[in-house]
Amino acid sequence: MNWNPDLIQEVRKRRPLVHQITNEVTVNDCANITLSCGASPVMAYAPEEVAEMAALASALVLNIGTLNANQVESMIQAGRAANEKGIPVVLDPVGAGATSFRTDSAKRLLEKVHISHLKGNAGEIATLAGEVSQVRGVDSGEVDHIRTIAVRAARKWGLTIIVTGEKDVITDGDKWVEVSNGHPLMATVTGTGCMCAPVVAAFAAVSNDPVAASVAAMVTYGIAAEQAGRVAEGPGSFRWRLFDALHALDGEGVRDSAQVQSG
Amino acid sequence: MNWNPDLIQEVRKRRPLVHQITNEVTVNDCANITLSCGASPVMAYAPEEVAEMAALASALVLNIGTLNANQVESMIQAGRAANEKGIPVVLDPVGAGATSFRTDSAKRLLEKVHISHLKGNAGEIATLAGEVSQVRGVDSGEVDHIRTIAVRAARKWGLTIIVTGEKDVITDGDKWVEVSNGHPLMATVTGTGCMCAPVVAAFAAVSNDPVAASVAAMVTYGIAAEQAGRVAEGPGSFRWRLFDALHALDGEGVRDSAQVQSG
Amino acid sequence: MNWNPDLIQEVRKRRPLVHQITNEVTVNDCANITLSCGASPVMAYAPEEVAEMAALASALVLNIGTLNANQVESMIQAGRAANEKGIPVVLDPVGAGATSFRTDSAKRLLEKVHISHLKGNAGEIATLAGEVSQVRGVDSGEVDHIRTIAVRAARKWGLTIIVTGEKDVITDGDKWVEVSNGHPLMATVTGTGCMCAPVVAAFAAVSNDPVAASVAAMVTYGIAAEQAGRVAEGPGSFRWRLFDALHALDGEGVRDSAQVQSG
Repeated sequence: MNWNPDLIQEVRKRRPLVHQITNEVTVNDCANITLSCGASPVMAYAPEEVAEMAALASALVLNIGTLNANQVESMIQAGRAANEKGIPVVLDPVGAGATSFRTDSAKRLLEKVHISHLKGNAGEIATLAGEVSQVRGVDSGEVDHIRTIAVRAARKWGLTIIVTGEKDVITDGDKWVEVSNGHPLMATVTGTGCMCAPVVAAFAAVSNDPVAASVAAMVTYGIAAEQAGRVAEGPGSFRWRLFDALHALDGEGVRDSAQVQSG
Repeated sequence: MNWNPDLIQEVRKRRPLVHQITNEVTVNDCANITLSCGASPVMAYAPEEVAEMAALASALVLNIGTLNANQVESMIQAGRAANEKGIPVVLDPVGAGATSFRTDSAKRLLEKVHISHLKGNAGEIATLAGEVSQVRGVDSGEVDHIRTIAVRAARKWGLTIIVTGEKDVITDGDKWVEVSNGHPLMATVTGTGCMCAPVVAAFAAVSNDPVAASVAAMVTYGIAAEQAGRVAEGPGSFRWRLFDALHALDGEGVRDSAQVQSG
Repeated sequence: MNWNPDLIQEVRKRRPLVHQITNEVTVNDCANITLSCGASPVMAYAPEEVAEMAALASALVLNIGTLNANQVESMIQAGRAANEKGIPVVLDPVGAGATSFRTDSAKRLLEKVHISHLKGNAGEIATLAGEVSQVRGVDSGEVDHIRTIAVRAARKWGLTIIVTGEKDVITDGDKWVEVSNGHPLMATVTGTGCMCAPVVAAFAAVSNDPVAASVAAMVTYGIAAEQAGRVAEGPGSFRWRLFDALHALDGEGVRDSAQVQSG
């Protein structure tokens, strides 16, 4: 598996604008992580402007963490504008499986918009793939055979899937990669899952390979989390140290600590 | 007054899911404090899903800090689902008394939903209890005889009231308890009031005694604030240290520093 | 140019209530910066209450960062109540020029409400002033002759304009002032622009001179950023240190480090 540890340098050079329609809980974290990896965030939700904003952007993130019916319509409009422009669209189906409104909305987005990257935990991905799964709120346990499920789903939908967990699984239905970078403190802070999506979007915006960009993004983000976690005293300090670490990380640091296994 | 300093251990063991319909300003803090005390937060607001999400949860928090008419309807739906399931419902009537929309909405929630815990500052509680009070924005001075007012109101509504202030007053209309833990820096950071509600909800979710759970919650949270405050250099560092301190606190630490007086 | 380095002491003494209708991304930062400079924030958005809340306040902030059609109507209502009461109204036209909805909404607010302070980056101000400009998302490069544009626009609209940038330009169309305080890390954290508005509002609430209050506000805020930036290790630590620094700053500290040039 070829991926570029220096891709973060490309993000910093080109500063892609990442349009995000996201949840109220972690929106600030998502904006800040976008800046910390060198890209430029813009949040815009109103039906009057989402298509125009998406057309200005280099990538789009759709996160349904605090969705409502109007917001889903805005996401579809923005998604279609992004598709017309040919930029990456990352979907984070937060809580799919917890309520039918979330599951249905995520499926609707997969149907109406060409999603390039679907990022979720095992329960969310399994639910959308139609596999039996137990999802509890927005947390979820690992499901067996998640890699098999992800590969099959990626092939069916024609996109790249990133299943987050202790090991992240990335696949386009053909090849798959496992990324082991990350830190246990990530589970103690809200938004550490959500923040993957704009990072993936920023990296995908400056790359032609959706899987390689996702690998570079998840490795870079995971290494920043490891560095933050080593010096943090708890969830509060871990959170701000994550932004500091990502901001200071360069291609060499990424190359030295990457834990990637491919198949 | 019997209360259990080790109740935080029970929260960590059972990881109750706390569904929160809350304000935009401090929603991230509320999610993070829920995680720091060992519970699991989920924010869900849409009418299409609130009842379903509340039915999955172990406690519900309703906070009217940036309310709108639709959100109040969602709160009623979620509250009724929580009542059917028999889980605790904590109401935080932010700014009641400041505008009639807030006062009326809080009263409507008290009428339509069986609230188990009402948490507010002196002005908010006095307003809802029909006592003359001066409330200025979401800050408010102490009112005279707040304990008398709280005891009377708790009896009338059949719930537990937590009046936050330099001394927190907790009462079910029968017994009352005063908690003196806390730190002056709490007044310099937004959300230190709001965050009490999910902590109380998490503790109430793993206890059968609404007053004792509230005491354990307010003492535990107050001690974390004291520990954060002792090493903080201002509001910015106080905020992240609060999460670190709560995450590291155990039953022994709670027992050693509790300042509780009951009558 | 006469301005008062001790104005922050006046803010702390009088604790003005600053009503804010603002964006979801940085709302928590805006509340906390208001507290850190000694004022009291309240966020209230619902049409049922905005006029009542604005009438209780000592200043109003309108920020269109995540605007929608209903919110713009609430802003107009709140703005009119503020105008009736004669309190300062600060408009932050986030992203004006990026989409026509943002540009039109900002113009509509300028038309329907008497804005006392318009704060934006060069691209936003140039767009609203009808000058040709290239705006990219909410970031924007400096435009040529921004001072000329600002002076002309301030005269036309009869208000004080604050153009943020490496050097902030403040003008009422008659006199102008340049403030050079600030730190490069401000560009790496979301909300550092938004937070200027509530600081200006708090200072304007305790002053009779709109330009002098803006200068004191931007200098005070910029010095806090410098102090935070000197010890920060990146964007994460810069952010919390900014709150600590502003909270600790006094008139003497402001006087010692002010970088003001007037013409």
